[in-house]
Amino acid sequence: MSDGVLGDLNELFHVKARLGIMTLLISQGESDFSTLKAHLGLTDGNLGAHIRVLEEAGYVGVEKGFVGRRPRTTCRVTEAGRKAFAAYLHQLEALIRMVDPDKL
Amino acid sequence: MSDGVLGDLNELFHVKARLGIMTLLISQGESDFSTLKAHLGLTDGNLGAHIRVLEEAGYVGVEKGFVGRRPRTTCRVTEAGRKAFAAYLHQLEALIRMVDPDKL
Repeated sequence: MSDGVLGDLNELFHVKARLGIMTLLISQGESDFSTLKAHLGLTDGNLGAHIRVLEEAGYVGVEKGFVGRRPRTTCRVTEAGRKAFAAYLHQLEALIRMVDPDKL
Repeated sequence: MSDGVLGDLNELFHVKARLGIMTLLISQGESDFSTLKAHLGLTDGNLGAHIRVLEEAGYVGVEKGFVGRRPRTTCRVTEAGRKAFAAYLHQLEALIRMVDPDKL
């Protein structure tokens, strides 16, 4: 899909789990791994894999630390992630506008 | 992802190519296979496979006919498809609203 309707839609965000992760991180500022897991109903492995994809793209930063003796992984959206996600949401908005509500 | 942020997002539509097909069919009323292919930049096989998924879900109707001697496949969105896609777009809108624009 090189051009047309959805030409440059960022497919990295266009995956349900990652859309959920980005939405939560942006609306909450930051979040730890367990909170994300609980909100999204994902397994450890699944959430970890999606976070890694976002981290490798430079969209999410991950910090590992401890709260007392318990390990805690905190994720937050980077500046690049914020910009890219804003662009993605604008594309979705444009798409929604393209569909005439009278036809729905 | 059984609950939370994106709990029941229709994953059948949440695939770039199918989102493109539904958007075109709804905005244009109906479309033939070649037009869809040209607009979406998909191969025959790829477009065919996505149309089949939408057809099997009862969201798109496919009619095969001829224009002169040339075969022509016409696709159009069914009533069930229209309703399901409207629900999907509403979910995306809700998601977009959830992300505070001041944070983007």
